[in-house]
Amino acid sequence: MNEWDGFQGERWKKRVDVEDFIINNYKEYRDDVKFLKGISKKTGKLWSRCQKLLDKEMTAKVLDVDTTAIAGIDTLEAGFIDKKYEVIVGLQTDEPLKRIVNPFGGIESARQSLFPYGYHLDHDIEEKFAEFCKTYHDGIEHAYTKKVKLYRENNVLSTLPEEYGRGKILGDYRRLALYGADYLINRKKHDLERLTENINFSMIRAREEVSEQIDALEEMKWMASRYDIDISRPASNAREAFQWLYFAYLANIKQNNGVINSIGRNTAFLDIYIERDLQRKVITEEEAQELVDQFIMKLRLVRHLRKNDYREYLVGDPAWVTESIGGMNASGTSFVTKTSYRFLHSLENIGSSQEPNLTILWSTKLPEPFKRYVSKLALDTHVIQFVNDDLLRPIYGQDYAITGTCTAVPIGKRLVYYGGSCNLPKLLLYAINGGKDEITGELMIEGLEEIKDEYLPYQPIVKNFVKCMTEMIGHYVDAQSIVHYMQDKYAYESAPMAFMDTVSERMMSFGITGISTVADSLSAIRYGKVKAVRDEEGRIQEFVIDHEFPRYGNNDEHVDRMVSDILKIFAKNLKKKHLYRNSVGQISLQTVADNVYYGAHTGATPDGRLAHQPFASGASPVNGVDNTGAANSLKSVAKVPFEGVCMDGIANNIIISPTALGKKDSEKQDSLLNLINEYFTLGGEHLNIGIQSKNELFEYQRNPGKNYNMIVRYSDCGVKFSALSRNQQEELMSRTFHEKI
Amino acid sequence: MNEWDGFQGERWKKRVDVEDFIINNYKEYRDDVKFLKGISKKTGKLWSRCQKLLDKEMTAKVLDVDTTAIAGIDTLEAGFIDKKYEVIVGLQTDEPLKRIVNPFGGIESARQSLFPYGYHLDHDIEEKFAEFCKTYHDGIEHAYTKKVKLYRENNVLSTLPEEYGRGKILGDYRRLALYGADYLINRKKHDLERLTENINFSMIRAREEVSEQIDALEEMKWMASRYDIDISRPASNAREAFQWLYFAYLANIKQNNGVINSIGRNTAFLDIYIERDLQRKVITEEEAQELVDQFIMKLRLVRHLRKNDYREYLVGDPAWVTESIGGMNASGTSFVTKTSYRFLHSLENIGSSQEPNLTILWSTKLPEPFKRYVSKLALDTHVIQFVNDDLLRPIYGQDYAITGTCTAVPIGKRLVYYGGSCNLPKLLLYAINGGKDEITGELMIEGLEEIKDEYLPYQPIVKNFVKCMTEMIGHYVDAQSIVHYMQDKYAYESAPMAFMDTVSERMMSFGITGISTVADSLSAIRYGKVKAVRDEEGRIQEFVIDHEFPRYGNNDEHVDRMVSDILKIFAKNLKKKHLYRNSVGQISLQTVADNVYYGAHTGATPDGRLAHQPFASGASPVNGVDNTGAANSLKSVAKVPFEGVCMDGIANNIIISPTALGKKDSEKQDSLLNLINEYFTLGGEHLNIGIQSKNELFEYQRNPGKNYNMIVRYSDCGVKFSALSRNQQEELMSRTFHEKI
Repeated sequence: MNEWDGFQGERWKKRVDVEDFIINNYKEYRDDVKFLKGISKKTGKLWSRCQKLLDKEMTAKVLDVDTTAIAGIDTLEAGFIDKKYEVIVGLQTDEPLKRIVNPFGGIESARQSLFPYGYHLDHDIEEKFAEFCKTYHDGIEHAYTKKVKLYRENNVLSTLPEEYGRGKILGDYRRLALYGADYLINRKKHDLERLTENINFSMIRAREEVSEQIDALEEMKWMASRYDIDISRPASNAREAFQWLYFAYLANIKQNNGVINSIGRNTAFLDIYIERDLQRKVITEEEAQELVDQFIMKLRLVRHLRKNDYREYLVGDPAWVTESIGGMNASGTSFVTKTSYRFLHSLENIGSSQEPNLTILWSTKLPEPFKRYVSKLALDTHVIQFVNDDLLRPIYGQDYAITGTCTAVPIGKRLVYYGGSCNLPKLLLYAINGGKDEITGELMIEGLEEIKDEYLPYQPIVKNFVKCMTEMIGHYVDAQSIVHYMQDKYAYESAPMAFMDTVSERMMSFGITGISTVADSLSAIRYGKVKAVRDEEGRIQEFVIDHEFPRYGNNDEHVDRMVSDILKIFAKNLKKKHLYRNSVGQISLQTVADNVYYGAHTGATPDGRLAHQPFASGASPVNGVDNTGAANSLKSVAKVPFEGVCMDGIANNIIISPTALGKKDSEKQDSLLNLINEYFTLGGEHLNIGIQSKNELFEYQRNPGKNYNMIVRYSDCGVKFSALSRNQQEELMSRTFHEKI
Repeated sequence: MNEWDGFQGERWKKRVDVEDFIINNYKEYRDDVKFLKGISKKTGKLWSRCQKLLDKEMTAKVLDVDTTAIAGIDTLEAGFIDKKYEVIVGLQTDEPLKRIVNPFGGIESARQSLFPYGYHLDHDIEEKFAEFCKTYHDGIEHAYTKKVKLYRENNVLSTLPEEYGRGKILGDYRRLALYGADYLINRKKHDLERLTENINFSMIRAREEVSEQIDALEEMKWMASRYDIDISRPASNAREAFQWLYFAYLANIKQNNGVINSIGRNTAFLDIYIERDLQRKVITEEEAQELVDQFIMKLRLVRHLRKNDYREYLVGDPAWVTESIGGMNASGTSFVTKTSYRFLHSLENIGSSQEPNLTILWSTKLPEPFKRYVSKLALDTHVIQFVNDDLLRPIYGQDYAITGTCTAVPIGKRLVYYGGSCNLPKLLLYAINGGKDEITGELMIEGLEEIKDEYLPYQPIVKNFVKCMTEMIGHYVDAQSIVHYMQDKYAYESAPMAFMDTVSERMMSFGITGISTVADSLSAIRYGKVKAVRDEEGRIQEFVIDHEFPRYGNNDEHVDRMVSDILKIFAKNLKKKHLYRNSVGQISLQTVADNVYYGAHTGATPDGRLAHQPFASGASPVNGVDNTGAANSLKSVAKVPFEGVCMDGIANNIIISPTALGKKDSEKQDSLLNLINEYFTLGGEHLNIGIQSKNELFEYQRNPGKNYNMIVRYSDCGVKFSALSRNQQEELMSRTFHEKI
């Protein structure tokens, strides 16, 4: 194909293999940042228009909604920010920041997503959809067991994707650019021919799914043609590569309203096209940066329409448009290219923003100039997060990416079923309270040993707790089976799946919220002597702790070991279960914002946490208790077992005072570099590091107008501090702001 | 419950068990027909209005269509023939004979069902449905393998329910009358609670299905309330029992456009209510007959909207509203009640009609007066068919019914997946032609032994044929798996399933068309010396037969044995396959009208049949060749193995000249009785016996106006002779009209 002129390698030409294409063609860049160019005029015009709209949206919450159609790959007209300035076209709807209704999670849920903002779905669409269509929400309601419903009502399991899409499936969107739609359609047709042995239930499902993927690719061609673009063939230059890639991704976010909307790992791939264009002298560095900036800009406009309660729970309307940058290849060369820089440089050209979720695949062997540039930007913008490439690459190979916060997947080869999380501290309270819910009083778990002692006894409680956890896992597995069955049945994600291998691995993530609260509570019971204050019905009202006890987050083996043990027991129980579509179950220590939600619905815990207070996010220590320095905090979290246990990811959100890093900028950059290096050398997986002083936040609270675009690292994502409610701001400020390393 | 006052028995009060209710309460009637009353005034008024509409429909083909809504249990307003005369209310739509659009088999198919009759679906409904909904037709197209598509295109497998509903599922509609909707809802909820172990794929599906059944029962309550009737409680008198039963059935035919629409076995059940009312003196015999006549009248109005090609293929628009009457109970008493007579007597009150498909469960031990009455009516009206109760009862128990032509099911306990049929003679041609289709020339089956001899060799052809059959069965199983998977996914029949046990047996029917042509062809090859006349490409153009050869239908073991052997080999192959939802596969020798359709698409066969000529229907001998008397014809068919082989039914359509039965009416009745007795004593399963002279049909052709309502036994059903095309009439008249027994 002409489009491939000048590209090296053979294997990728004979089958879909983007990794092989990259390895054969990309050029590492180890030099400095001098080549980078500023914002182009066109981009400037566009971005200023976007900023106006973003400001308006900040007030309105929802800027606009298309109520005359429903979500789909090609259900809407073309949309532009300002056509004459756009070098990459395409929007989710026909206007920037206008949202689309996705009723497949329930027409009632759609109604509730619109009503608070003064919209309502076209009457006729609403009526007909409700009459003709069953949604996955309906299906879930039909199939949930009484026990699952009970667990949901009592907030042990309540953050499952029951009304919105799963989203965590990451398509290899680069495939559209490299191969074009027609080639991919032919490959899928070829795959279909191979799915003919033993036409049983799962083979029929597979055949139908692949056929829907083919339909999705055809629809994408129609969608692109609305912009007068023919994506049936491969991209022939850098602009087209960006455009094709973006269209592939756009098809996903037009079709699905998933909680996670990652885009993959695209810088080395795109750099190959830019380099070829530069060599052919058909593009300038300014134009290359313009492509990057406009691409990034588009990713900042990703929006889904959500119910109010979802927005309260997922603070700041995050979309997790994660782009993975950096990492090493299998031969020890880094994937850092000029385009890696260009992507990061967009933060300087069009300012910092919570999206896309720029994620550095960090290796100690990354080129020093790159590390330093990243470190500088992290300090300046608060929008960069890190995962440990030296940990993940040996497991997932060189061509993996992060979907969401810190879930690594080989791109296009493994899909992840997103599954919310469970409220672990509540189970501990069940273990203490004879299986009864501490808020509703309902008997949740039967046959536990009764705990009547004034001082809580460690061993019987641990025994009860393991029993509670085991029973809960059974219901969690049931809930997930039902959720994913119904999502597949009523809202199959044919768009991203069209960019995945037909035979892909499947992983199912089981989230745990409040692990640090559980560990600290067990530590308090064991080492601190905890007295239970009970009401006349024997229900515990309060815990009084007699002594100091070891707290997770201070590198104390007494309690850090408890974290590992609990997780290993959880994982072992999970492995005994047969999961939907033969998925491999993995624990997820990413709480999204479940920690606040679950905390609000959970009574006081034996570690001294008051009722309704939030838990810590992800794998982080309890807010404010990791007070022996950042290094110790990181050491504790680094011990959390990854391989075979928490392979869906171990999110660590930590805040460090800028002053703790040093005085001069270069000093701070060094300290940050060292900190990351050390954490990852110890085996940590993910680091969401906020370099922030509490004063800065106090300052903001006093004078919000001044810096309302300031991003803070919140729960597994960046968010504008101004988007947080006062309570949420307080929660953030109750965390440890490490004053020393 | 008050509604049960006066009813005996205990078991049925504690669980859903209509059989136990009947056994404890029904009263056999062994006396004569003197008690029967004529048509009531109300019924007369209604029927004359219906007749006018039916006449109009005869010309228009489709009288009217509601294009403003789509099929569903409760999607339409109440409808009446003439409210003031109706003792049983309810219609599929808001007008008699007005049809409803069921787009779940594909919006294009719906369009094609409307267009030829000058209708089109409301534009907005059509647009939205097409946009929002995937149909089972879409799903089937997505999942069919290339091989299945090839077999369909070449008319080896082409009459599967891909665009219309399956229908063969027979709900126990009596349950609604005996228990009321609320009790049934509670039982289903109870069942749901038991489906909680091991929440795997099939358990999730089961849970969703039971939940949809509960929803269906709720919807039925709404549907009934449009007629100001509350079906939440049990029926409290005979009128209500008829009404509830009819509503339950109505929900099914409103929701689904199945090819088969049987209603069950209701006479003994309804008789219990009538007897109680008569004893309570709240009803007269005239009123009882009025209920029956009006019920039968309603069943004559069952209509579905079909594509033109379906209507051409299923001549006379049959609905197979099969009502099973008679049979013996386990203790040797017959189920014949006064209401059995009343049902049959409706033929005298409101004239003969192809629907409902009145089916006598015949036992040699049935009361003589009943047998005689049946025999008389069969001779007078041509609308009664017979199945062998002495064969079926020991297998299925005393409470079974026929769904369709001759498929017996224990009511509410076993469901049948309807699966069209395969074209067996075509496979024989493949066996002779090196696996190539004799019409399209496509290579259908590879690796067959080449047949080049001038005179066809028996053994190599049989070997090839078995290979062809085996390979075809594999694809037939695949096709059925896909069809039923998609029907379950996109158009689950929650209405009839709500009246079945949650844990029911499943049977899958595999139809065979043209068995007699295959057997005769093999007999010709073996005993007749068949010369193949080939064209230059080696394809066979014609068969020349040198000698006479034994023909199936003459009680000649040489060929009758071939029929059995082929069927047993087919059944054995089928048993090796794992079928959808663990169904048990059974052969169906009911061709519906596939014999004409397949015949038209099949070349000449070695038995002397010309290309494109029809095959015989069901298990019947080839038209016109069973010329050694009716007794011999019946003896041949009676040898077809039922148990474990053709348990979906062995339809035998036979025509006997009235003169062959005797001169006087009583003589004819005796002969008919004896013939049925003998056939069933030999083990025959089903008899669709037309007592007709060829002259009578010639007469009709000369002067059609005279007797245009005349019913003839056509293919597995009754049909108005006037509804047949000239070609179809010729086909019927080419059959053997047995002039001697």
